[in-house]
Amino acid sequence: MAQQKIPEVVVDRLPTYVRALTLLREEGISVVSSQELGVRLRVTPAQIRKDLSYFGRFGKQGRGYNIDNLIRELRSILGLTKEWPMALVGAGQLGQAILRYTGFVPEGFRVVAAFDTDKRQIGRKIGPVVVQDVAELPQTVVERNVDIGIVAVPSATAQGVIDTLVRSGIRAILNYAPMSPHIPENVLVREVDPVVALQSMTFYLKLDEKQREKAAQ
Amino acid sequence: MAQQKIPEVVVDRLPTYVRALTLLREEGISVVSSQELGVRLRVTPAQIRKDLSYFGRFGKQGRGYNIDNLIRELRSILGLTKEWPMALVGAGQLGQAILRYTGFVPEGFRVVAAFDTDKRQIGRKIGPVVVQDVAELPQTVVERNVDIGIVAVPSATAQGVIDTLVRSGIRAILNYAPMSPHIPENVLVREVDPVVALQSMTFYLKLDEKQREKAAQ
Repeated sequence: MAQQKIPEVVVDRLPTYVRALTLLREEGISVVSSQELGVRLRVTPAQIRKDLSYFGRFGKQGRGYNIDNLIRELRSILGLTKEWPMALVGAGQLGQAILRYTGFVPEGFRVVAAFDTDKRQIGRKIGPVVVQDVAELPQTVVERNVDIGIVAVPSATAQGVIDTLVRSGIRAILNYAPMSPHIPENVLVREVDPVVALQSMTFYLKLDEKQREKAAQ
Repeated sequence: MAQQKIPEVVVDRLPTYVRALTLLREEGISVVSSQELGVRLRVTPAQIRKDLSYFGRFGKQGRGYNIDNLIRELRSILGLTKEWPMALVGAGQLGQAILRYTGFVPEGFRVVAAFDTDKRQIGRKIGPVVVQDVAELPQTVVERNVDIGIVAVPSATAQGVIDTLVRSGIRAILNYAPMSPHIPENVLVREVDPVVALQSMTFYLKLDEKQREKAAQ
């Protein structure tokens, strides 16, 4: 199957293309060139063309991309033509912000269950769900066909939660705990870690300061 | 300057190396091979060695990396030997979770000011700061030497907030609003968007389902 050879960095960029294209469509734009899209996304037009070429031919030379078509194709490639049920573990401050986040459903993701060990949280209705005891997690994951788990517990308890999710048959994990979990090869994981994002910028901030110091000498 | 030629993907991976190494140190480990580190990070040992080779020679052939040394070197490369003051805009549910997040300070980041337009939030003490009127942002950014802005407002108002931050002299932005902002070339930006992370996993979940369907035929 050709798709298996697609580099992970390419797959990782496709969602940002979908997001930018969707925003362009909301602005009333129907055709976009790789140049214009590149400016929006701060990548080169050549990279956009190369990334898309893995999946077939989209735009016509010199005529730009039809935004509606490209969104539909990319959403299909990314598996976004169905809704993905998700289970959240950890209904503290962060978990509650995630449960009240309105950005998942329009993109095809729905939190269908939330779990905590804290008796004060269990039974509370937060956003679209009632918080359940984490002991009910394995059965709920099976009953609700949950593929994706969201981990919003402190680092110290995250590995245990991840182990439970994996044993329950979860195939993908969105991890908000700032740690590097042990996860079997066949389970996907993505980290949401603001510190990692910040640290990749300070490298350039420091470089910039050095150059300014040099220029001032 | 040699550092300017380092690929951005390499710089983006360094913080994950620091995080994994720090966790290994907390487990009482003092030396790690690129093989062991690779297993933790789900990357190949060759990639780790190549990434690190941009910055000099760290480990000795066949003897692994001294974790203390490597953390210190990487933190220095990433500009993490000083504390970076940050300003947050948006003190709603998400902003409050960010203000109460305890993971920034140990890593060298400190939110020194928070802003909102909502009269009910202004004057409230949340986490380490008292929320100010966003009108005070430009002066505070200069006075507190703030380099990094955090955007935690809804998408509809995010571009205006980002413009204000840029005009105030901010050099880097951590953006939680799910949109693709217009930002000058000389200002850095990183997005914290759980939907983008989820969408890069559904590609593989869908692929996996197709293969299982095929195998069942």
